Amino acid sequence: MSQQESINCAVFGASGYSGVELAWLLHNHPFFTLSYAFTSGAREAEPITALYPQLNGRCELTLQPWHSDLLPQLAQQVRVVFLALPHAVSAELAPQLTAAGLIVFDLSGAFRLADARQHAMAYGFPQPQLNAPAHYGIAEFSDLQGNEPLVAVAGCYPTAAALALRPLKALLKPSSVAIVNAVSGVTGAGRKAQLASNFNEVSLQAYGVANHRHQPEMAQSIGCDILFVPHLGNFKRGILATVYAELAPGTTQAAIEDSFQACYHNQPLVRLVGTPPKLQQVVGTPYCDIYYKTHGSTLILSVAIDNLLKGAASQAVQLANQYFRLPATAGLINQGAVV
Amino acid sequence: MSQQESINCAVFGASGYSGVELAWLLHNHPFFTLSYAFTSGAREAEPITALYPQLNGRCELTLQPWHSDLLPQLAQQVRVVFLALPHAVSAELAPQLTAAGLIVFDLSGAFRLADARQHAMAYGFPQPQLNAPAHYGIAEFSDLQGNEPLVAVAGCYPTAAALALRPLKALLKPSSVAIVNAVSGVTGAGRKAQLASNFNEVSLQAYGVANHRHQPEMAQSIGCDILFVPHLGNFKRGILATVYAELAPGTTQAAIEDSFQACYHNQPLVRLVGTPPKLQQVVGTPYCDIYYKTHGSTLILSVAIDNLLKGAASQAVQLANQYFRLPATAGLINQGAVV
Amino acid sequence: MSQQESINCAVFGASGYSGVELAWLLHNHPFFTLSYAFTSGAREAEPITALYPQLNGRCELTLQPWHSDLLPQLAQQVRVVFLALPHAVSAELAPQLTAAGLIVFDLSGAFRLADARQHAMAYGFPQPQLNAPAHYGIAEFSDLQGNEPLVAVAGCYPTAAALALRPLKALLKPSSVAIVNAVSGVTGAGRKAQLASNFNEVSLQAYGVANHRHQPEMAQSIGCDILFVPHLGNFKRGILATVYAELAPGTTQAAIEDSFQACYHNQPLVRLVGTPPKLQQVVGTPYCDIYYKTHGSTLILSVAIDNLLKGAASQAVQLANQYFRLPATAGLINQGAVV
Amino acid sequence: MSQQESINCAVFGASGYSGVELAWLLHNHPFFTLSYAFTSGAREAEPITALYPQLNGRCELTLQPWHSDLLPQLAQQVRVVFLALPHAVSAELAPQLTAAGLIVFDLSGAFRLADARQHAMAYGFPQPQLNAPAHYGIAEFSDLQGNEPLVAVAGCYPTAAALALRPLKALLKPSSVAIVNAVSGVTGAGRKAQLASNFNEVSLQAYGVANHRHQPEMAQSIGCDILFVPHLGNFKRGILATVYAELAPGTTQAAIEDSFQACYHNQPLVRLVGTPPKLQQVVGTPYCDIYYKTHGSTLILSVAIDNLLKGAASQAVQLANQYFRLPATAGLINQGAVV
Repeated sequence: MSQQESINCAVFGASGYSGVELAWLLHNHPFFTLSYAFTSGAREAEPITALYPQLNGRCELTLQPWHSDLLPQLAQQVRVVFLALPHAVSAELAPQLTAAGLIVFDLSGAFRLADARQHAMAYGFPQPQLNAPAHYGIAEFSDLQGNEPLVAVAGCYPTAAALALRPLKALLKPSSVAIVNAVSGVTGAGRKAQLASNFNEVSLQAYGVANHRHQPEMAQSIGCDILFVPHLGNFKRGILATVYAELAPGTTQAAIEDSFQACYHNQPLVRLVGTPPKLQQVVGTPYCDIYYKTHGSTLILSVAIDNLLKGAASQAVQLANQYFRLPATAGLINQGAVV
Repeated sequence: MSQQESINCAVFGASGYSGVELAWLLHNHPFFTLSYAFTSGAREAEPITALYPQLNGRCELTLQPWHSDLLPQLAQQVRVVFLALPHAVSAELAPQLTAAGLIVFDLSGAFRLADARQHAMAYGFPQPQLNAPAHYGIAEFSDLQGNEPLVAVAGCYPTAAALALRPLKALLKPSSVAIVNAVSGVTGAGRKAQLASNFNEVSLQAYGVANHRHQPEMAQSIGCDILFVPHLGNFKRGILATVYAELAPGTTQAAIEDSFQACYHNQPLVRLVGTPPKLQQVVGTPYCDIYYKTHGSTLILSVAIDNLLKGAASQAVQLANQYFRLPATAGLINQGAVV
Repeated sequence: MSQQESINCAVFGASGYSGVELAWLLHNHPFFTLSYAFTSGAREAEPITALYPQLNGRCELTLQPWHSDLLPQLAQQVRVVFLALPHAVSAELAPQLTAAGLIVFDLSGAFRLADARQHAMAYGFPQPQLNAPAHYGIAEFSDLQGNEPLVAVAGCYPTAAALALRPLKALLKPSSVAIVNAVSGVTGAGRKAQLASNFNEVSLQAYGVANHRHQPEMAQSIGCDILFVPHLGNFKRGILATVYAELAPGTTQAAIEDSFQACYHNQPLVRLVGTPPKLQQVVGTPYCDIYYKTHGSTLILSVAIDNLLKGAASQAVQLANQYFRLPATAGLINQGAVV
Repeated sequence: MSQQESINCAVFGASGYSGVELAWLLHNHPFFTLSYAFTSGAREAEPITALYPQLNGRCELTLQPWHSDLLPQLAQQVRVVFLALPHAVSAELAPQLTAAGLIVFDLSGAFRLADARQHAMAYGFPQPQLNAPAHYGIAEFSDLQGNEPLVAVAGCYPTAAALALRPLKALLKPSSVAIVNAVSGVTGAGRKAQLASNFNEVSLQAYGVANHRHQPEMAQSIGCDILFVPHLGNFKRGILATVYAELAPGTTQAAIEDSFQACYHNQPLVRLVGTPPKLQQVVGTPYCDIYYKTHGSTLILSVAIDNLLKGAASQAVQLANQYFRLPATAGLINQGAVV
């Protein structure tokens, strides 16, 4: 694909943390042109720099309110839309967008679960209907053909867990339950005024113990039963997951290494590392770092991603690159600061 | 005063950060008995441990909603009330309480400013009226007689600034303007769901530049003109103020030292320190640490307090100790952790 | 025991983080008198406030270098010594102290492991010899008689893990392996100049995966096999452990509750809580907070302690209280700040 | 200049925080080729990812030890060297490099002060000698001609202070002293094992009160007397300086605005902002954000930079861009994460 044929796109929910990262990635992307940045709220149009002054001088985007009567114009001017919206808002909006012929990359959970009952339990509203099934998207496990109407970009925790476990699925003890113990930064809770995210209230704590809605998504994505315990940590960005799984008898270290290599050999955004990753080595990057160690028949994995990037915005772009047969890392190997 | 004659008291606004510290200090105080802890909200009665589980097993207090028909009972059962309420709520409630014969220690700004016009500008509502003037209270500069109807406990920033500058007032260059550059922790903004206090949004930043409402309070308390620039810092508790003032010609180091000694010689909760204080050395304590250095004719002071304690709760208790002729540090030299 | 018979004691290693907390607890203790605070380094005597200015005005202790020729004097003047020293230093010093008739509470790992081979592997030096066996001390599981020569105070991680799991041991699936996934604050690494503890380098990270030396101590203390993965977190104090264990078939919720109640019914410093604990609710306190939930046959526990207190200093004092038949919480229910 | 004529360069001190940022900027720079990355230590050659695993897969650089016998080869292969070294090491090495014909951008303080006596006092060693005078470099005030042998890149604090004050110099009250109250992140202290940078020890604190070695540099750079009080803050990166200066009588707001506009109208990396900047809006960026407000005759400025970028690495690259007549922001408008 030549650089001339830039792909026009729009971001919905561009005022949120995932949304602004997405808008910024697309703004800088060599093959996409970000034509619109919508906010779901009713506020007046305002420059994105009013909310994110760090972008002053670098990004002239206007955040504008979305009204459904903009749809015909949007459908004419852009090919792709990225939704970084609340689940229920995505559920309602996405079918309208696909019906108008737009390709949708949805970062919400509205279209992730295949099972209608699980969906209703997890999200509290019925599974929205599309004309064609949504593609559940973790880039490394996807092979997008460019004709899918909607890609349901995977959740942050499930991305971390699946990247660690799915390549090894054949090596796990059948019918065993893998444990995913994960700690997420506070941006995972979104850009909201809420007491639980108040600076003074944040402190390391488990929540949603064994009943977080990412649990069925993980199980679906990995293909095995999962026990998931998320925690909130006192940092802004990143997820560090420590995963415990039982290996099938006789599984060798070499078999594990081979399975990872087979899966990630050509995947530039997964890094197999020899030391348990520090969260800061992935924060601000599109990478997933995976460390593993066996202890008897137990496999221990330590896996780190940036929840707003590989867990949301950069994964969406990575999937869009794949959709349009662009280089896998186009627009993603950013040049943020190191330390 | 013997320990038998315990003084019954109540705290209003006990669910907030200053309020809970105050309730906890009074709960542990050898000479006070905390009989009631009210919350200004309309919520049902609930144990304080529902909001602050750290107090489980140590504090059986119930937070209860306040209704004005409780006043007769309150007036009969307690002698003193401490108000850790929003300014406007205090302004309305305090006169009712004093009228009922209760001694009021008010931690809000409702009664601090002597000048009615300054008050209205700073707080946006007219100065409330009391039968007798409020006593403005910084413990080290107060000499409470035990007959004052209401003590307006000083604000956090003004406490830090006045403790640093007021002892030296006679040494300052006449009509010069002292600069107070201060950084406060996020608890200073209260226990609220608000975007500005969201963990992801907090970052060192100046605010209220030269127009914060603590500026007239500082000027009144110190007795000289002040330029005040507060900052929000990325920590929970504490205020570090760096103060710059012009010395009158010929002022010696010895004169400064003498002035401080004269003022604080018998004050156990002010510590003159030889190294600029780290914030953590006062956090969790009722102390004010003061360091000074001269550079030519300029005096530089570095002063640290815990905003919730010396800047609010412990100062209120210190004033109450004085009011009832109790030992200055009764109930205040707590035994919190060191590191 | 009457308050008159105050027990003289000494702290070794009082300049470190655990050591200073211990010294401060004993300084404030109603039944102990802290006569000496030694530092293992060769430095000159200096006030403890030179290192910890937060104690200015509250604690006149002098840190003094230890020389073995002080032993006779020490043995005459104090009854009890607390060692907050490096493992190898304790290993060498403790036998000299017990031989001189001193009662030793040792916070190092030198005397914790019963198995000589495990000790040598974990600590890199041979197990030190005492005339009588050391008592391994977690206060809730100890029944000190007051004639033990040395109490090996449990490690921080093992304390958290054992308090969560040991009461339930009879309910666990036989020969299953429990998983302890724990995150500790940076004070756990001690008061040292080292790159790994540099402010800029600290970031959530697993370490010592399945080979930390607290693993055999946990297994010994709980009595079952353990898989232990510690993590370093970006906070100063506290340990949050998430524990996963397989229950024996048919284990009911009631059986778990009963086992905890049987064990902790009279234990004032363990709190069974209905919500997963936030780390901040135990930091600065001597409590251990335990939450549990079952998911199928898996038991999940979330347990929080302050690593420097229940994981070190306050547990040592709690054991000393037991040793001398003092009230369990004497000197421990401190009055630190709440928020 | 066409992209073909890439300029070969080397970084010394590439293992430090400023050094690695510099190496990473040059690695990504469209017009420079980073040929060598040296470390001053004696360690073996190792990949930069051994120290900074965040660069895995993005940067193949090898950190190699420097030996003076490499000089001929270096002089042949590269045109420019960037020194991110300790002051004394730069002082010794830089003259050798310029003598070999290499263009030197020195990030240390070795060549910044014009006055030999001030230099000796500030740095503790005599001013090093060069054949031609060093150019003191703040990019916005420099007009490099491309024939200077050595550019002494300005210090972090002086950059912030000078960018705020120097454009207004003509408007300040003659012979008044401006106050620079600044707070820096811990990376300012370098990548070292030292107790003061230990995670547990860092807390907001003033240091070097009125005697920091950046004070003479500021005075020299701005051209007026300065009172400088730096503080260490509990964050990794960034400097927030609050500056107080007396205006000449009759100075209008318009005059200030005009002076800033005249100076920065064409400067893409200085942003005049209408709200006091949050530190996080410059961290990870090459920008300097400046806010100002007058209060009577006093001018208050709030200015923010990233100490490792505009205060070190990106400023060096900005100066090198100028030196070689490249676009001012070439390689600098990075695409790091937003939030």
